[in-house]
Amino acid sequence: MRIGFIGLGAMGAPMAARLVAAGHEVRGFDMRKAAVEALVAHGGHAAQSAQQAAEGCDLLWLMVVNGEQARAVLFGSEGGVAAMLPASAIVVAGCTQAPAQAKALASQLAESGVVMLDAPVSGGVAGAQAGALSVMCSGPQAALDAVRAAFDAVAKRVFHVGNEAGLGSTAKMVNQLLCGVHIAAAAEAMHVAERAGIPLPAMHEIISVSAGNSWMWGDRGPRMMQDDPPVTSAVDIFVKDLGIVLDQGKLARQGLPLAAAAMQMFLAASGLGHGMADDSQVIRAYRALNGDKKG
Amino acid sequence: MRIGFIGLGAMGAPMAARLVAAGHEVRGFDMRKAAVEALVAHGGHAAQSAQQAAEGCDLLWLMVVNGEQARAVLFGSEGGVAAMLPASAIVVAGCTQAPAQAKALASQLAESGVVMLDAPVSGGVAGAQAGALSVMCSGPQAALDAVRAAFDAVAKRVFHVGNEAGLGSTAKMVNQLLCGVHIAAAAEAMHVAERAGIPLPAMHEIISVSAGNSWMWGDRGPRMMQDDPPVTSAVDIFVKDLGIVLDQGKLARQGLPLAAAAMQMFLAASGLGHGMADDSQVIRAYRALNGDKKG
Repeated sequence: MRIGFIGLGAMGAPMAARLVAAGHEVRGFDMRKAAVEALVAHGGHAAQSAQQAAEGCDLLWLMVVNGEQARAVLFGSEGGVAAMLPASAIVVAGCTQAPAQAKALASQLAESGVVMLDAPVSGGVAGAQAGALSVMCSGPQAALDAVRAAFDAVAKRVFHVGNEAGLGSTAKMVNQLLCGVHIAAAAEAMHVAERAGIPLPAMHEIISVSAGNSWMWGDRGPRMMQDDPPVTSAVDIFVKDLGIVLDQGKLARQGLPLAAAAMQMFLAASGLGHGMADDSQVIRAYRALNGDKKG
Repeated sequence: MRIGFIGLGAMGAPMAARLVAAGHEVRGFDMRKAAVEALVAHGGHAAQSAQQAAEGCDLLWLMVVNGEQARAVLFGSEGGVAAMLPASAIVVAGCTQAPAQAKALASQLAESGVVMLDAPVSGGVAGAQAGALSVMCSGPQAALDAVRAAFDAVAKRVFHVGNEAGLGSTAKMVNQLLCGVHIAAAAEAMHVAERAGIPLPAMHEIISVSAGNSWMWGDRGPRMMQDDPPVTSAVDIFVKDLGIVLDQGKLARQGLPLAAAAMQMFLAASGLGHGMADDSQVIRAYRALNGDKKG
Protein backbone atom coordinates (compact mmCIF):
# COMPACT_ATOMS: atom_id res chain seq x y z
CA MET A 1 0.00 0.00 0.00
CA ARG A 2 1.20 3.50 -0.72
CA ILE A 3 0.90 5.44 2.51
CA GLY A 4 1.38 9.15 3.12
CA PHE A 5 2.17 9.69 6.79
CA ILE A 6 2.01 13.16 8.31
CA GLY A 7 3.22 13.77 11.85
CA LEU A 8 6.34 11.85 12.86
CA GLY A 9 6.31 12.62 16.58
CA ALA A 10 6.61 10.34 19.60
CA MET A 11 3.71 8.21 18.37
CA GLY A 12 3.89 8.79 14.62
CA ALA A 13 7.58 7.97 14.16
CA PRO A 14 7.45 4.38 15.49
CA MET A 15 4.09 3.79 13.76
CA ALA A 16 5.48 4.89 10.39
CA ALA A 17 8.57 2.75 10.94
CA ARG A 18 6.38 -0.30 11.59
CA LEU A 19 4.40 0.38 8.42
CA VAL A 20 7.69 0.40 6.48
CA ALA A 21 8.75 -2.84 8.16
CA ALA A 22 5.43 -4.43 7.16
CA GLY A 23 6.30 -3.77 3.52
CA HIS A 24 4.28 -0.64 2.78
CA GLU A 25 5.65 2.26 0.75
CA VAL A 26 5.60 5.09 3.29
CA ARG A 27 6.17 8.73 2.36
CA GLY A 28 6.54 10.71 5.56
CA PHE A 29 6.34 14.38 6.40
CA ASP A 30 6.98 16.34 9.57
CA MET A 31 7.89 19.98 10.20
CA ARG A 32 11.10 18.74 11.85
CA LYS A 33 13.57 17.58 9.23
CA ALA A 34 15.31 15.22 11.65
CA ALA A 35 12.09 13.25 12.08
CA VAL A 36 11.80 12.77 8.32
CA GLU A 37 15.44 11.70 8.10
CA ALA A 38 14.87 9.14 10.85
CA LEU A 39 12.05 7.61 8.79
CA VAL A 40 14.30 7.46 5.74
CA ALA A 41 16.91 5.63 7.84
CA HIS A 42 14.20 3.05 8.57
CA GLY A 43 13.57 2.59 4.85
CA GLY A 44 10.80 5.13 4.33
CA HIS A 45 10.67 7.98 1.85
CA ALA A 46 11.05 11.67 2.58
CA ALA A 47 8.34 14.14 1.62
CA GLN A 48 9.32 17.81 1.44
CA SER A 49 5.79 18.92 2.21
CA ALA A 50 2.44 17.58 3.33
CA GLN A 51 1.30 17.79 -0.29
CA GLN A 52 4.15 15.59 -1.43
CA ALA A 53 3.27 13.00 1.22
CA ALA A 54 -0.36 12.96 0.08
CA GLU A 55 0.26 12.87 -3.65
CA GLY A 56 -1.04 9.67 -5.23
CA CYS A 57 -1.36 7.81 -1.92
CA ASP A 58 -3.84 5.02 -1.20
CA LEU A 59 -3.95 5.98 2.45
CA LEU A 60 -3.14 9.29 4.14
CA TRP A 61 -2.47 8.82 7.84
CA LEU A 62 -2.55 11.89 10.08
CA MET A 63 -0.76 11.58 13.41
CA VAL A 64 -0.56 15.31 14.09
CA VAL A 65 -1.06 16.74 17.59
CA ASN A 66 -4.77 17.56 17.50
CA GLY A 67 -7.86 18.24 15.41
CA GLU A 68 -6.85 21.81 14.58
CA GLN A 69 -3.62 20.57 13.01
CA ALA A 70 -5.48 17.86 11.11
CA ARG A 71 -7.80 20.50 9.70
CA ALA A 72 -4.86 22.75 8.75
CA VAL A 73 -3.12 19.89 6.94
CA LEU A 74 -6.24 18.93 4.99
CA PHE A 75 -7.89 22.27 4.37
CA GLY A 76 -5.41 24.99 5.44
CA SER A 77 -5.26 28.15 3.33
CA GLU A 78 -1.56 27.53 2.64
CA GLY A 79 -2.05 24.46 0.52
CA GLY A 80 -4.37 21.97 2.20
CA VAL A 81 -3.81 18.51 0.80
CA ALA A 82 -7.45 17.38 0.58
CA ALA A 83 -7.81 18.81 -2.92
CA MET A 84 -5.03 16.66 -4.33
CA LEU A 85 -6.05 13.32 -2.82
CA PRO A 86 -7.10 10.63 -5.30
CA ALA A 87 -10.84 10.00 -4.97
CA SER A 88 -10.06 6.42 -3.96
CA ALA A 89 -7.79 7.53 -1.12
CA ILE A 90 -8.72 6.87 2.48
CA VAL A 91 -7.77 9.35 5.18
CA VAL A 92 -7.01 7.90 8.61
CA ALA A 93 -7.38 10.56 11.30
CA GLY A 94 -5.25 8.95 14.00
CA CYS A 95 -4.83 11.95 16.24
CA THR A 96 -6.81 12.55 19.40
CA GLN A 97 -9.50 15.12 18.72
CA ALA A 98 -12.99 16.06 19.77
CA PRO A 99 -15.74 13.88 18.25
CA ALA A 100 -17.30 16.97 16.69
CA GLN A 101 -14.01 17.84 14.99
CA ALA A 102 -13.66 14.33 13.59
CA LYS A 103 -17.21 14.48 12.29
CA ALA A 104 -16.65 17.85 10.62
CA LEU A 105 -13.44 16.70 8.93
CA ALA A 106 -15.15 13.61 7.57
CA SER A 107 -18.06 15.66 6.21
CA GLN A 108 -15.77 18.10 4.47
CA LEU A 109 -13.70 15.27 2.95
CA ALA A 110 -16.88 13.55 1.78
CA GLU A 111 -17.65 16.61 -0.35
CA SER A 112 -14.74 15.61 -2.58
CA GLY A 113 -15.63 11.93 -2.34
CA VAL A 114 -12.82 10.99 0.05
CA VAL A 115 -13.58 8.60 2.90
CA MET A 116 -12.18 9.24 6.37
CA LEU A 117 -11.71 6.78 9.20
CA ASP A 118 -11.90 8.35 12.65
CA ALA A 119 -9.23 6.22 14.28
CA PRO A 120 -7.48 7.50 17.39
CA VAL A 121 -5.17 5.11 19.20
CA SER A 122 -4.23 4.22 22.73
CA GLY A 123 -1.26 2.40 24.17
CA GLY A 124 1.28 5.21 24.34
CA VAL A 125 4.79 5.38 22.94
CA ALA A 126 5.67 1.91 24.24
CA GLY A 127 2.63 0.47 22.47
CA ALA A 128 3.54 2.29 19.27
CA GLN A 129 7.10 0.94 19.34
CA ALA A 130 5.88 -2.60 19.93
CA GLY A 131 3.14 -2.42 17.30
CA ALA A 132 0.72 -3.13 20.14
CA LEU A 133 -1.60 -0.13 20.00
CA SER A 134 -5.37 -0.25 20.26
CA VAL A 135 -7.16 1.49 17.40
CA MET A 136 -10.67 2.78 18.10
CA CYS A 137 -12.06 3.18 14.62
CA SER A 138 -15.31 4.41 13.17
CA GLY A 139 -16.21 4.74 9.51
CA PRO A 140 -17.47 2.54 6.66
CA GLN A 141 -16.63 -1.15 7.04
CA ALA A 142 -15.30 -1.26 3.46
CA ALA A 143 -12.76 1.44 4.23
CA LEU A 144 -11.67 -0.36 7.38
CA ASP A 145 -11.25 -3.57 5.39
CA ALA A 146 -9.17 -1.70 2.82
CA VAL A 147 -6.67 -0.38 5.39
CA ARG A 148 -6.82 -3.33 7.77
CA ALA A 149 -3.35 -4.58 6.85
CA ALA A 150 -1.91 -1.18 7.75
CA PHE A 151 -3.77 -1.10 11.07
CA ASP A 152 -2.52 -4.57 11.87
CA ALA A 153 1.06 -3.38 11.41
CA VAL A 154 0.75 -0.91 14.30
CA ALA A 155 -1.99 -2.36 16.48
CA LYS A 156 -2.67 -5.42 18.56
CA ARG A 157 -6.38 -4.63 18.64
CA VAL A 158 -8.66 -2.84 16.21
CA PHE A 159 -12.13 -1.97 17.47
CA HIS A 160 -14.78 -0.95 14.95
CA VAL A 161 -17.17 1.13 17.05
CA GLY A 162 -19.54 2.42 14.41
CA ASN A 163 -20.02 3.60 10.84
CA GLU A 164 -19.95 7.33 11.47
CA ALA A 165 -16.95 9.55 12.06
CA GLY A 166 -16.94 10.83 15.63
CA LEU A 167 -17.57 7.49 17.30
CA GLY A 168 -13.90 6.47 17.27
CA SER A 169 -13.04 9.76 18.94
CA THR A 170 -15.91 9.31 21.38
CA ALA A 171 -14.54 5.91 22.43
CA LYS A 172 -11.15 7.48 23.05
CA MET A 173 -12.84 10.31 24.94
CA VAL A 174 -14.67 7.82 27.18
CA ASN A 175 -11.28 6.38 28.11
CA GLN A 176 -9.95 9.86 28.88
CA LEU A 177 -13.01 10.59 31.03
CA LEU A 178 -12.27 7.52 33.11
CA CYS A 179 -8.54 8.27 33.28
CA GLY A 180 -9.15 11.82 34.49
CA VAL A 181 -11.75 10.84 37.08
CA HIS A 182 -9.60 7.95 38.32
CA ILE A 183 -6.50 10.12 38.79
CA ALA A 184 -8.50 12.72 40.72
CA ALA A 185 -10.21 9.98 42.76
CA ALA A 186 -6.81 8.47 43.59
CA ALA A 187 -5.65 11.90 44.79
CA GLU A 188 -8.82 12.35 46.85
CA ALA A 189 -8.32 8.93 48.46
CA MET A 190 -4.61 9.51 49.15
CA HIS A 191 -5.48 12.87 50.62
CA VAL A 192 -7.93 11.28 53.08
CA ALA A 193 -5.27 8.74 54.08
CA GLU A 194 -2.44 11.24 54.48
CA ARG A 195 -4.59 13.60 56.52
CA ALA A 196 -5.64 10.77 58.84
CA GLY A 197 -2.00 9.75 59.28
CA ILE A 198 -2.11 6.38 57.50
CA PRO A 199 1.30 5.52 56.00
CA LEU A 200 0.80 6.03 52.26
CA PRO A 201 2.82 3.02 51.08
CA ALA A 202 0.58 0.77 53.19
CA MET A 203 -2.51 2.54 51.85
CA HIS A 204 -1.27 2.08 48.31
CA GLU A 205 -0.68 -1.62 48.84
CA ILE A 206 -4.10 -2.14 50.47
CA ILE A 207 -5.96 -0.58 47.55
CA SER A 208 -3.81 -2.43 45.03
CA VAL A 209 -5.28 -5.72 46.28
CA SER A 210 -8.81 -4.38 46.88
CA ALA A 211 -11.93 -3.58 44.89
CA GLY A 212 -10.98 0.13 44.87
CA ASN A 213 -8.07 -0.55 42.56
CA SER A 214 -7.66 1.09 39.16
CA TRP A 215 -5.02 1.14 36.47
CA MET A 216 -4.37 4.76 37.40
CA TRP A 217 -4.00 3.94 41.11
CA GLY A 218 -1.24 1.52 40.18
CA ASP A 219 0.45 3.90 37.77
CA ARG A 220 -0.02 7.35 39.34
CA GLY A 221 -0.26 6.31 42.99
CA PRO A 222 3.49 5.88 43.53
CA ARG A 223 4.18 9.29 41.98
CA MET A 224 1.45 10.83 44.13
CA MET A 225 3.54 9.88 47.17
CA GLN A 226 6.54 11.83 45.82
CA ASP A 227 7.00 15.55 46.31
CA ASP A 228 8.45 16.24 42.90
CA PRO A 229 8.04 13.20 40.66
CA PRO A 230 9.20 12.94 37.05
CA VAL A 231 6.60 14.19 34.57
CA THR A 232 5.03 11.35 32.63
CA SER A 233 1.98 13.33 31.59
CA ALA A 234 1.28 16.88 32.76
CA VAL A 235 -1.66 18.28 34.72
CA ASP A 236 -2.48 20.55 31.76
CA ILE A 237 -2.91 17.53 29.46
CA PHE A 238 -5.90 16.53 31.56
CA VAL A 239 -7.16 20.10 31.57
CA LYS A 240 -7.21 19.64 27.79
CA ASP A 241 -8.60 16.09 27.73
CA LEU A 242 -11.35 16.61 30.30
CA GLY A 243 -12.02 19.89 28.49
CA ILE A 244 -12.81 17.88 25.36
CA VAL A 245 -15.10 15.61 27.40
CA LEU A 246 -17.02 18.53 28.90
CA ASP A 247 -17.19 20.49 25.62
CA GLN A 248 -18.67 17.42 23.98
CA GLY A 249 -21.08 17.03 26.90
CA LYS A 250 -22.12 20.64 26.39
CA LEU A 251 -22.72 20.09 22.67
CA ALA A 252 -24.73 16.95 23.42
CA ARG A 253 -26.56 18.56 26.37
CA GLN A 254 -25.33 15.78 28.62
CA GLY A 255 -24.48 16.48 32.25
CA LEU A 256 -21.37 14.64 33.45
CA PRO A 257 -21.01 15.36 37.17
CA LEU A 258 -17.88 13.32 37.90
CA ALA A 259 -15.94 14.54 34.88
CA ALA A 260 -16.90 18.08 35.83
CA ALA A 261 -15.77 17.66 39.45
CA ALA A 262 -12.47 16.07 38.38
CA MET A 263 -11.89 18.91 35.90
CA GLN A 264 -12.17 21.47 38.70
CA MET A 265 -9.36 19.73 40.59
CA PHE A 266 -7.06 19.68 37.55
CA LEU A 267 -7.91 23.32 36.86
CA ALA A 268 -7.14 24.21 40.47
CA ALA A 269 -3.83 22.33 40.34
CA SER A 270 -2.96 24.26 37.19
CA GLY A 271 -4.05 27.53 38.79
CA LEU A 272 -1.79 26.78 41.76
CA GLY A 273 1.11 26.77 39.30
CA HIS A 274 1.41 23.01 38.77
CA GLY A 275 0.16 22.83 35.16
CA MET A 276 3.48 21.46 33.90
CA ALA A 277 3.90 19.07 36.85
CA ASP A 278 3.10 15.37 36.63
CA ASP A 279 -0.67 14.86 36.67
CA SER A 280 -0.34 12.86 39.91
CA GLN A 281 0.26 16.26 41.50
CA VAL A 282 -3.44 17.04 41.26
CA ILE A 283 -3.19 15.92 44.89
CA ARG A 284 -1.75 19.38 45.58
CA ALA A 285 -5.11 20.89 44.70
CA TYR A 286 -6.69 18.71 47.40
CA ARG A 287 -4.11 19.83 49.94
CA ALA A 288 -4.72 23.45 49.03
CA LEU A 289 -8.50 22.99 49.14
CA ASN A 290 -8.39 21.66 52.66
CA GLY A 291 -5.55 23.81 53.97
CA ASP A 292 -2.95 21.11 54.41
CA LYS A 293 0.69 22.06 54.64
CA LYS A 294 2.06 20.40 51.54
CA GLY A 295 -0.39 22.29 49.26
CA MET B 1 -6.58 -19.12 72.01
CA ARG B 2 -10.05 -18.82 73.48
CA ILE B 3 -12.12 -16.74 71.08
CA GLY B 4 -15.59 -15.33 71.53
CA PHE B 5 -17.09 -14.65 68.09
CA ILE B 6 -20.23 -12.54 67.73
CA GLY B 7 -21.95 -12.22 64.37
CA LEU B 8 -22.04 -15.39 62.27
CA GLY B 9 -23.34 -13.89 59.05
CA ALA B 10 -22.09 -14.21 55.47
CA MET B 11 -18.61 -13.03 56.52
CA GLY B 12 -18.53 -14.10 60.17
CA ALA B 13 -19.59 -17.72 59.68
CA PRO B 14 -16.71 -18.76 57.40
CA MET B 15 -14.25 -16.70 59.46
CA ALA B 16 -15.28 -18.43 62.68
CA ALA B 17 -15.10 -21.81 60.95
CA ARG B 18 -11.54 -21.09 59.84
CA LEU B 19 -10.57 -20.10 63.37
CA VAL B 20 -11.89 -23.45 64.60
CA ALA B 21 -9.97 -25.24 61.86
CA ALA B 22 -6.79 -23.44 62.95
CA GLY B 23 -7.17 -25.01 66.40
CA HIS B 24 -8.69 -22.18 68.40
CA GLU B 25 -11.47 -22.68 70.91
CA VAL B 26 -14.28 -20.64 69.38
CA ARG B 27 -17.50 -19.81 71.22
CA GLY B 28 -19.92 -18.26 68.75
CA PHE B 29 -23.09 -16.26 69.08
CA ASP B 30 -25.61 -14.98 66.59
CA MET B 31 -29.26 -13.98 66.90
CA ARG B 32 -30.11 -16.70 64.37
CA LYS B 33 -29.90 -20.12 66.05
CA ALA B 34 -29.16 -21.89 62.78
CA ALA B 35 -25.97 -19.88 62.39
CA VAL B 36 -24.77 -20.99 65.82
CA GLU B 37 -25.64 -24.61 65.02
CA ALA B 38 -23.65 -24.41 61.81
CA LEU B 39 -20.60 -23.30 63.77
CA VAL B 40 -21.06 -26.21 66.18
CA ALA B 41 -21.17 -28.55 63.18
CA HIS B 42 -17.74 -27.16 62.23
CA GLY B 43 -16.39 -27.98 65.69
CA GLY B 44 -17.08 -24.69 67.45
CA HIS B 45 -19.03 -24.10 70.65
CA ALA B 46 -22.47 -22.56 70.99
CA ALA B 47 -23.05 -19.51 73.13
CA GLN B 48 -26.63 -18.80 74.22
CA SER B 49 -25.94 -15.10 74.48
CA ALA B 50 -23.33 -12.50 73.64
CA GLN B 51 -22.30 -12.54 77.30
CA GLN B 52 -21.66 -16.27 77.19
CA ALA B 53 -19.48 -15.84 74.11
CA ALA B 54 -17.45 -13.14 75.83
CA GLU B 55 -17.03 -14.83 79.19
CA GLY B 56 -13.39 -15.61 79.94
CA CYS B 57 -12.22 -15.13 76.37
CA ASP B 58 -8.73 -14.04 75.30
CA LEU B 59 -10.14 -12.41 72.20
CA LEU B 60 -13.63 -11.14 71.44
CA TRP B 61 -14.23 -10.79 67.72
CA LEU B 62 -17.17 -8.70 66.54
CA MET B 63 -18.39 -9.33 63.00
CA VAL B 64 -21.77 -7.65 63.44
CA VAL B 65 -23.32 -5.54 60.70
CA ASN B 66 -22.18 -2.07 61.71
CA GLY B 67 -20.83 0.19 64.43
CA GLU B 68 -24.22 0.65 66.09
CA GLN B 69 -24.52 -3.11 66.59
CA ALA B 70 -20.97 -3.30 67.91
CA ARG B 71 -21.81 -0.60 70.44
CA ALA B 72 -25.01 -2.40 71.45
CA VAL B 73 -23.14 -5.68 71.99
CA LEU B 74 -20.43 -4.04 74.10
CA PHE B 75 -22.36 -1.37 75.97
CA GLY B 76 -26.06 -1.99 75.34
CA SER B 77 -28.45 -1.37 78.20
CA GLU B 78 -29.66 -4.98 77.98
CA GLY B 79 -26.45 -6.55 79.18
CA GLY B 80 -23.47 -5.16 77.29
CA VAL B 81 -20.57 -7.57 77.44
CA ALA B 82 -17.76 -5.05 77.99
CA ALA B 83 -18.16 -5.17 81.75
CA MET B 84 -17.49 -8.89 81.92
CA LEU B 85 -14.41 -9.04 79.70
CA PRO B 86 -11.18 -10.07 81.42
CA ALA B 87 -8.83 -7.05 81.60
CA SER B 88 -6.34 -8.98 79.47
CA ALA B 89 -8.90 -9.57 76.70
CA ILE B 90 -8.51 -7.97 73.31
CA VAL B 91 -11.56 -6.88 71.35
CA VAL B 92 -11.30 -7.11 67.56
CA ALA B 93 -13.83 -4.82 65.91
CA GLY B 94 -14.01 -6.48 62.52
CA CYS B 95 -17.16 -4.86 61.23
CA THR B 96 -17.23 -1.95 58.83
CA GLN B 97 -17.95 1.24 60.74
CA ALA B 98 -17.21 4.94 60.70
CA PRO B 99 -13.71 5.84 61.95
CA ALA B 100 -15.26 8.04 64.62
CA GLN B 101 -17.37 5.11 65.85
CA ALA B 102 -14.32 2.85 66.08
CA LYS B 103 -12.43 5.53 67.98
CA ALA B 104 -15.29 6.02 70.43
CA LEU B 105 -15.62 2.28 71.08
CA ALA B 106 -11.90 1.96 71.75
CA SER B 107 -11.96 4.91 74.19
CA GLN B 108 -14.87 3.51 76.11
CA LEU B 109 -13.25 0.05 76.31
CA ALA B 110 -9.99 1.64 77.46
CA GLU B 111 -11.82 2.96 80.52
CA SER B 112 -12.04 -0.61 81.78
CA GLY B 113 -8.50 -1.40 80.60
CA VAL B 114 -9.55 -3.44 77.57
CA VAL B 115 -7.62 -2.96 74.33
CA MET B 116 -9.47 -2.81 71.02
CA LEU B 117 -8.11 -3.43 67.54
CA ASP B 118 -9.95 -1.53 64.82
CA ALA B 119 -9.76 -4.23 62.16
CA PRO B 120 -12.26 -4.20 59.31
CA VAL B 121 -11.70 -6.65 56.49
CA SER B 122 -12.03 -6.74 52.73
CA GLY B 123 -12.20 -9.60 50.30
CA GLY B 124 -15.88 -10.49 50.49
CA VAL B 125 -17.52 -13.81 51.21
CA ALA B 126 -15.23 -15.65 48.79
CA GLY B 127 -12.19 -14.26 50.60
CA ALA B 128 -13.65 -15.22 53.96
CA GLN B 129 -14.29 -18.79 52.83
CA ALA B 130 -10.77 -19.11 51.44
CA GLY B 131 -9.11 -17.52 54.48
CA ALA B 132 -7.79 -14.93 52.05
CA LEU B 133 -9.17 -11.70 53.50
CA SER B 134 -7.22 -8.49 53.92
CA VAL B 135 -7.31 -7.08 57.45
CA MET B 136 -6.78 -3.33 57.84
CA CYS B 137 -5.82 -3.06 61.46
CA SER B 138 -4.99 -0.21 63.79
CA GLY B 139 -4.19 -0.40 67.48
CA PRO B 140 -1.20 -1.16 69.70
CA GLN B 141 1.46 -3.37 68.12
CA ALA B 142 1.52 -5.64 71.17
CA ALA B 143 -2.20 -6.38 70.80
CA LEU B 144 -1.75 -7.11 67.11
CA ASP B 145 1.11 -9.48 67.94
CA ALA B 146 -1.07 -11.23 70.52
CA VAL B 147 -3.88 -11.97 68.04
CA ARG B 148 -1.72 -12.41 64.98
CA ALA B 149 -2.22 -16.17 64.81
CA ALA B 150 -5.98 -15.65 64.72
CA PHE B 151 -5.71 -13.01 61.98
CA ASP B 152 -3.51 -15.33 59.94
CA ALA B 153 -6.23 -17.99 60.10
CA VAL B 154 -8.68 -15.78 58.17
CA ALA B 155 -6.45 -13.41 56.21
CA LYS B 156 -3.89 -13.54 53.45
CA ARG B 157 -2.71 -10.03 54.30
CA VAL B 158 -2.69 -8.06 57.55
CA PHE B 159 -1.92 -4.35 57.26
CA HIS B 160 -1.03 -2.44 60.41
CA VAL B 161 -1.96 1.12 59.50
CA GLY B 162 -1.39 2.90 62.81
CA ASN B 163 -1.54 2.72 66.59
CA GLU B 164 -4.86 4.48 67.11
CA ALA B 165 -8.34 3.08 66.67
CA GLY B 166 -10.06 4.74 63.72
CA LEU B 167 -7.21 4.32 61.25
CA GLY B 168 -8.16 0.77 60.31
CA SER B 169 -11.68 1.96 59.60
CA THR B 170 -10.29 4.93 57.68
CA ALA B 171 -8.27 2.63 55.44
CA LYS B 172 -11.41 0.62 54.71
CA MET B 173 -13.32 3.86 54.11
CA VAL B 174 -10.69 5.02 51.59
CA ASN B 175 -11.33 1.80 49.69
CA GLN B 176 -15.08 2.41 49.78
CA LEU B 177 -14.55 5.98 48.55
CA LEU B 178 -12.69 4.64 45.52
CA CYS B 179 -15.22 1.86 44.93
CA GLY B 180 -18.14 4.30 44.98
CA VAL B 181 -16.48 6.85 42.73
CA HIS B 182 -15.33 4.15 40.30
CA ILE B 183 -18.80 2.62 39.97
CA ALA B 184 -20.35 6.03 39.31
CA ALA B 185 -17.53 6.90 36.88
CA ALA B 186 -18.10 3.62 35.05
CA ALA B 187 -21.79 4.49 34.76
CA GLU B 188 -20.98 8.00 33.52
CA ALA B 189 -18.61 6.58 30.90
CA MET B 190 -21.07 3.89 29.77
CA HIS B 191 -23.76 6.53 29.56
CA VAL B 192 -21.63 8.67 27.21
CA ALA B 193 -20.97 5.61 25.04
CA GLU B 194 -24.59 4.42 24.91
CA ARG B 195 -25.88 7.89 24.11
CA ALA B 196 -23.37 8.25 21.26
CA GLY B 197 -24.40 4.85 19.91
CA ILE B 198 -21.18 2.93 20.55
CA PRO B 199 -21.90 -0.79 21.08
CA LEU B 200 -21.38 -1.26 24.83
CA PRO B 201 -19.64 -4.66 24.67
CA ALA B 202 -16.98 -3.08 22.42
CA MET B 203 -16.71 -0.11 24.75
CA HIS B 204 -16.29 -2.44 27.70
CA GLU B 205 -13.54 -4.38 25.98
CA ILE B 206 -11.69 -1.21 24.90
CA ILE B 207 -11.56 0.16 28.44
CA SER B 208 -10.61 -3.22 29.86
CA VAL B 209 -7.31 -3.03 27.95
CA SER B 210 -6.80 0.72 28.41
CA ALA B 211 -5.57 3.10 31.09
CA GLY B 212 -9.15 3.92 32.05
CA ASN B 213 -9.64 0.44 33.50
CA SER B 214 -10.62 -0.22 37.11
CA TRP B 215 -11.52 -3.26 39.18
CA MET B 216 -15.09 -1.95 39.28
CA TRP B 217 -15.21 -1.50 35.48
CA GLY B 218 -14.37 -5.17 35.15
CA ASP B 219 -16.81 -6.29 37.81
CA ARG B 220 -19.79 -3.92 37.48
CA GLY B 221 -19.41 -3.06 33.78
CA PRO B 222 -21.02 -6.27 32.47
CA ARG B 223 -24.00 -5.83 34.85
CA MET B 224 -24.33 -2.18 33.78
CA MET B 225 -25.11 -3.46 30.27
CA GLN B 226 -28.02 -5.55 31.59
CA ASP B 227 -31.48 -4.18 32.17
CA ASP B 228 -32.18 -6.14 35.32
CA PRO B 229 -28.99 -7.80 36.57
CA PRO B 230 -28.72 -10.00 39.66
CA VAL B 231 -28.02 -7.99 42.83
CA THR B 232 -24.48 -8.49 44.06
CA SER B 233 -24.47 -5.36 46.18
CA ALA B 234 -27.31 -2.87 46.28
CA VAL B 235 -27.39 0.83 45.39
CA ASP B 236 -28.38 1.62 49.00
CA ILE B 237 -25.21 -0.03 50.30
CA PHE B 238 -23.24 2.71 48.57
CA VAL B 239 -25.62 5.33 49.86
CA LYS B 240 -24.53 4.04 53.29
CA ASP B 241 -20.81 3.65 52.51
CA LEU B 242 -20.35 6.99 50.75
CA GLY B 243 -22.47 8.43 53.56
CA ILE B 244 -19.80 7.27 56.03
CA VAL B 245 -17.11 8.85 53.82
CA LEU B 246 -18.90 12.19 53.65
CA ASP B 247 -19.89 12.21 57.35
CA GLN B 248 -16.25 11.61 58.22
CA GLY B 249 -15.23 14.38 55.82
CA LYS B 250 -17.68 16.67 57.56
CA LEU B 251 -16.25 15.81 60.98
CA ALA B 252 -12.72 16.37 59.69
CA ARG B 253 -13.69 19.51 57.76
CA GLN B 254 -12.36 17.94 54.59
CA GLY B 255 -14.02 18.64 51.24
CA LEU B 256 -14.24 15.56 49.00
CA PRO B 257 -15.69 16.70 45.68
CA LEU B 258 -15.66 13.39 43.81
CA ALA B 259 -17.12 11.35 46.66
CA ALA B 260 -19.81 14.01 47.02
CA ALA B 261 -20.66 13.96 43.30
CA ALA B 262 -20.77 10.15 43.24
CA MET B 263 -23.03 10.14 46.30
CA GLN B 264 -25.57 12.33 44.51
CA MET B 265 -25.82 9.78 41.72
CA PHE B 266 -26.40 6.87 44.13
CA LEU B 267 -28.93 8.98 46.03
CA ALA B 268 -30.70 9.82 42.79
CA ALA B 269 -30.74 6.14 41.75
CA SER B 270 -32.26 5.29 45.13
CA GLY B 271 -34.76 8.15 44.81
CA LEU B 272 -35.78 6.80 41.41
CA GLY B 273 -36.79 3.60 43.18
CA HIS B 274 -33.66 1.53 42.49
CA GLY B 275 -32.24 1.40 46.02
CA MET B 276 -32.49 -2.38 46.20
CA ALA B 277 -31.22 -2.87 42.64
CA ASP B 278 -27.64 -3.89 41.88
CA ASP B 279 -25.33 -0.90 42.36
CA SER B 280 -24.40 -1.08 38.66
CA GLN B 281 -27.86 0.37 38.09
CA VAL B 282 -26.63 3.79 39.23
CA ILE B 283 -26.46 4.18 35.43
CA ARG B 284 -30.23 4.68 35.58
CA ALA B 285 -29.67 7.93 37.46
CA TYR B 286 -27.51 9.13 34.55
CA ARG B 287 -30.21 8.20 32.05
CA ALA B 288 -32.82 10.02 34.11
CA LEU B 289 -30.55 13.05 34.55
CA ASN B 290 -30.10 13.45 30.82
CA GLY B 291 -33.57 12.38 29.75
CA ASP B 292 -32.66 9.14 28.05
CA LYS B 293 -35.34 6.55 27.46
CA LYS B 294 -34.04 3.72 29.59
CA GLY B 295 -34.04 5.93 32.73
